[in-house]
Amino acid sequence: VTKLVRFSVSMEEKLVATFDRLARKRGYANRSEAIRDALRAQLVRQEWKEGEEVAGVITLLYEHGRAGLSKRLTEIQHHALRQVISTTHIHLDHENCLEFVAVKGRAERVQKLADSLISLKGVKHGELAATSTGKRLL
Amino acid sequence: VTKLVRFSVSMEEKLVATFDRLARKRGYANRSEAIRDALRAQLVRQEWKEGEEVAGVITLLYEHGRAGLSKRLTEIQHHALRQVISTTHIHLDHENCLEFVAVKGRAERVQKLADSLISLKGVKHGELAATSTGKRLL
Amino acid sequence: VTKLVRFSVSMEEKLVATFDRLARKRGYANRSEAIRDALRAQLVRQEWKEGEEVAGVITLLYEHGRAGLSKRLTEIQHHALRQVISTTHIHLDHENCLEFVAVKGRAERVQKLADSLISLKGVKHGELAATSTGKRLL
Amino acid sequence: VTKLVRFSVSMEEKLVATFDRLARKRGYANRSEAIRDALRAQLVRQEWKEGEEVAGVITLLYEHGRAGLSKRLTEIQHHALRQVISTTHIHLDHENCLEFVAVKGRAERVQKLADSLISLKGVKHGELAATSTGKRLL
Repeated sequence: VTKLVRFSVSMEEKLVATFDRLARKRGYANRSEAIRDALRAQLVRQEWKEGEEVAGVITLLYEHGRAGLSKRLTEIQHHALRQVISTTHIHLDHENCLEFVAVKGRAERVQKLADSLISLKGVKHGELAATSTGKRLL
Repeated sequence: VTKLVRFSVSMEEKLVATFDRLARKRGYANRSEAIRDALRAQLVRQEWKEGEEVAGVITLLYEHGRAGLSKRLTEIQHHALRQVISTTHIHLDHENCLEFVAVKGRAERVQKLADSLISLKGVKHGELAATSTGKRLL
Repeated sequence: VTKLVRFSVSMEEKLVATFDRLARKRGYANRSEAIRDALRAQLVRQEWKEGEEVAGVITLLYEHGRAGLSKRLTEIQHHALRQVISTTHIHLDHENCLEFVAVKGRAERVQKLADSLISLKGVKHGELAATSTGKRLL
Repeated sequence: VTKLVRFSVSMEEKLVATFDRLARKRGYANRSEAIRDALRAQLVRQEWKEGEEVAGVITLLYEHGRAGLSKRLTEIQHHALRQVISTTHIHLDHENCLEFVAVKGRAERVQKLADSLISLKGVKHGELAATSTGKRLL
């Protein structure tokens, strides 16, 4: 089980008030949870900067009609078996597909895989969204 | 079918050389495709800024053991039926799950949905990754 | 004088440990200050998103030799007297100048001013760096 | 003098039209300049990622009344003489100051300097805005 610790923080009254207002607006039930999330978000950015083991999702927007493209996307993903966890395919309209490739691994490796998919001809937009494996955040 | 146009661009020799080197490194087969991607990436950022219809993926890292959390996540997503396209669930380890919620809709709406999921207690990290419906990028 | 409040936060032990390590690494003297900064950074991003009154700096990298460019940069800045606070000019090398334009005003206005400077021919790189007037952060 | 090269690019008609509309909106006189800027912006991000020699500006928002703070800020900057180019100080209101520290050097060094200034107690917000020395962009 996760061990909780409790500690106190001092803060300018105005800063607390402004932060509380924003947290409520975004749907947080209480201040503690909003603070924890702010800290975790910083830590995830840091994990990526420092090349730790990370998790993420590669978004790929492409035209399914482009000859050979789906095949090439699949090949590259199979080649990166250890990084790729799963793939979700969405039919946006008659021409456009959206593919989400869930990935895990060292930040650099994962970035390289993303580059090799995004740079393919026919992929109109791609991005690597960063999250975490959660190991250091619990 | 997509109509192609061809036009010429003038550029400092050094800028072209540096850009070509970077494009090759990222796996682009030719300069044109790398340039098209650079322009599309700018346009996607703009679509989000201007509140257009967008697509994206909400990444959610959470502990599945947290009482009531999975249920709450599912309820919110069902409530936002028009924005949510699909959900992929990944078992990271004994405690941590990763969920990718594919979404589509007006930028503001989609952001609000992301906030309401990310702010739940037990969600350790969440982010809304932006991509496009492709309609204006073809 | 600024009124301080003190409140307590509960957090997973591991999260606190990881955050403390990062905070020390970046030079923070104590945890409270690191937490306050994390919250303020979120609020500044929010001020910009919501179009509040903001402060910032426009960085402009350009070739001073380009005919008419310095004159045009100065004209535009004079035209935006209410947003522009001051300008710092740095001679990077024989060809390149770096100019930092300190600005203040509604987020949208300031963005428009930045665009009009950055889009000038001869300006090789420009960016609007966001900070705050501090009014809501104290 | 800078040598220019001219080459042709093929692109979907719709992409060109959307990009042109955005470029005009931001004030660009012609498409070529807007394209060059998009490429340079990518290259600057890359210079920072790869730890090249970079230029930038550290924005510091702080309360001048905080005992010992101005002195400490000055000391740290003097200690980093080789990175610091110049400092601009702006009086925002009775309590808040904005300081822009122009910096140059290896990306990691510059980041470390920024961290040590931003983490000081009394500095409410700080950020390192990235630009370039222009050497590889010409």
